[in-house]
Amino acid sequence: MEDELLLMLPGPVPLPERVRSAMARQAINHRGAEFGNAYADIVRVLKDLFGTKNNPLVISGSGTSGMEAAVSNFGKGRKIAHLINGKFGERMYTIGQRYASEALPVVSDWGTPLNLEALKSALEGGCEVVTMVHNETSAGILNPGEEVGKICRKYDALFIMDGVTSIGGDNVQADKWGVDVAVVGSQKCLAAPAGLAAVSVSGRAWERAVNNPPYYLDLMAYKKNAAKDPMETPYTPAVPLFLALREACLIIEEEGIEKRILRHHKMAKAVRSAVGAWGLDMFPKIDAFHQYSNTVTAVCIPPNSNDKDFRGTVKNFSIQIAGGQDHLKDKIFRIGHMGAVSAPELLATLAATEFAIRKTGHKVTDSGVMAAAEVLG
Amino acid sequence: MEDELLLMLPGPVPLPERVRSAMARQAINHRGAEFGNAYADIVRVLKDLFGTKNNPLVISGSGTSGMEAAVSNFGKGRKIAHLINGKFGERMYTIGQRYASEALPVVSDWGTPLNLEALKSALEGGCEVVTMVHNETSAGILNPGEEVGKICRKYDALFIMDGVTSIGGDNVQADKWGVDVAVVGSQKCLAAPAGLAAVSVSGRAWERAVNNPPYYLDLMAYKKNAAKDPMETPYTPAVPLFLALREACLIIEEEGIEKRILRHHKMAKAVRSAVGAWGLDMFPKIDAFHQYSNTVTAVCIPPNSNDKDFRGTVKNFSIQIAGGQDHLKDKIFRIGHMGAVSAPELLATLAATEFAIRKTGHKVTDSGVMAAAEVLG
Repeated sequence: MEDELLLMLPGPVPLPERVRSAMARQAINHRGAEFGNAYADIVRVLKDLFGTKNNPLVISGSGTSGMEAAVSNFGKGRKIAHLINGKFGERMYTIGQRYASEALPVVSDWGTPLNLEALKSALEGGCEVVTMVHNETSAGILNPGEEVGKICRKYDALFIMDGVTSIGGDNVQADKWGVDVAVVGSQKCLAAPAGLAAVSVSGRAWERAVNNPPYYLDLMAYKKNAAKDPMETPYTPAVPLFLALREACLIIEEEGIEKRILRHHKMAKAVRSAVGAWGLDMFPKIDAFHQYSNTVTAVCIPPNSNDKDFRGTVKNFSIQIAGGQDHLKDKIFRIGHMGAVSAPELLATLAATEFAIRKTGHKVTDSGVMAAAEVLG
Repeated sequence: MEDELLLMLPGPVPLPERVRSAMARQAINHRGAEFGNAYADIVRVLKDLFGTKNNPLVISGSGTSGMEAAVSNFGKGRKIAHLINGKFGERMYTIGQRYASEALPVVSDWGTPLNLEALKSALEGGCEVVTMVHNETSAGILNPGEEVGKICRKYDALFIMDGVTSIGGDNVQADKWGVDVAVVGSQKCLAAPAGLAAVSVSGRAWERAVNNPPYYLDLMAYKKNAAKDPMETPYTPAVPLFLALREACLIIEEEGIEKRILRHHKMAKAVRSAVGAWGLDMFPKIDAFHQYSNTVTAVCIPPNSNDKDFRGTVKNFSIQIAGGQDHLKDKIFRIGHMGAVSAPELLATLAATEFAIRKTGHKVTDSGVMAAAEVLG
């Protein structure tokens, strides 16, 4: 048993007690008013988090099911340009290859800016759909939704944005930016359990919806059932997860969206201050359009250390941070700071991480914990 | 609020307190030992319930996602014969149409025996895959898995069986019957919450797996990840639902599979005795190969009544039974008796139903409640 390990990952994240308790409810009829009201509460809050007037549709499946729903319902048989600068951008491309008439990867190194010039060339070459991961957790970089949205509109392409780890924790304005299809996962910034994905769809995208996407991911069926009163899903939904997500959404509403985003920004700033004090390098290379992620911070691991020992030291304090994925294993570590996470968890995590850094023999410039405290206090 | 309505439906079913409590666990790492052990517990118990030596793979999605996984991974681009005698048979056909080179419906009226002669003709005509719903809840009929399995083997066709509402409540012997792919849903006989599907796959089916099924439903990816130690899923799983299903499986193990099936048979017999005493007709037409379902009983509604009033009367007792779906609305009512349901819930349900029957003006032959009590006592 890994009893009560504090998860400081880019999801899943710790769950507020209210959210966990909501799942203990006895089974209810998923075609009745109680379920419909829960779904309606979720939609009301998510709309604001997505920055859209369109009602997000909720799928019982992981964030990946939401990504596949987006790509299959709007990209099937079309030429798709996939912006890639990390693992989840690559996953979008892998999904695109199953549906597109041609899937075109527009590749940058992980954690470096997207190649927007290459995107424009792809669009001039006839790409009708563009996918982008807004917050690329594998590399800790925040990609430019607004800028890519503008480019897509200019070429009249549909813009699919994976907001799995930004929506609910950072500023997203789907309608204003020109995002046609946006996706969020429940277990990230929303601080609900894993197992649900929500997808918003613009009117423009509905007009271009394809026929015969996968049956389980057919968004038109979700739309039809969500229009019923009470609201329904086309297939039996994961009821406890809806009840948990509803509670998580009510908590978000109570906190206030603006305050919630500011809290995430503040936590991110605190972690970045710690990284500076430690004398370590941030992993992503940013520019005018690309920023450091505000929900997960990716840091170059101290010299002469390895992932297993480094994160093992942190884990001795019952805290789990993330390592690098694929070719970034042993190269970076990542601290998630999304969802309900706040000052106490963050201070403890930075203290344990600083201990691990010192243990590698790396001489820190200053106390990262105190630098973070300056920001958080 | 429909507070604490007793759900006597063909799923979702009431959840034991242990199962509900299991979900309140704080978020855990889904790539760690605790999650892997939960998955392993689920697989150990499900194998026996499926009657197979192959480890069932668990998808975070509804039963429908499991059906689509089966059809897409093994039927894509092939000629599929779909046995149909109810709503879920029709759904399989709808899914088949998205993947098959040719989807051939082998249709009987809802609740009447499958047309096995027409199936043989279809197989002689080159169908390579057959789908059948084992327990057709829309009509309360149990279709012949063993017989259809024999026919499929004779023609070397793959046999996909939807066991969503039979596995865990009635006898299923996937390997012995020659079922290549079997599917169960969590919220039916297993008495876990909705949101998970499990799929078992024979060696013969793996050899014939197609390329590029939907990414989220790619069973080969599930197989690869389940082979890891600790066991994993390819995408972030719905962790609380896994923990709940594990607890439900432990409860099944404690009860014993044989005893559990006998309990379901006894409950079904009790309901059928009540139907006889009421002087009402069972809806399904059975024969030597087809039986009345042991997990849901479909009964012709008393003359001169309608679904809304009839089930409304039952609902006044805080009990929800099911009506007929699609063209069977106002024609039948259905009582689910699957999962953890036992004597007290069943007696209360039959009492409320008998009251509703009498209220329609129908003269019952005898007390259905007492007839059921004779069986249950």
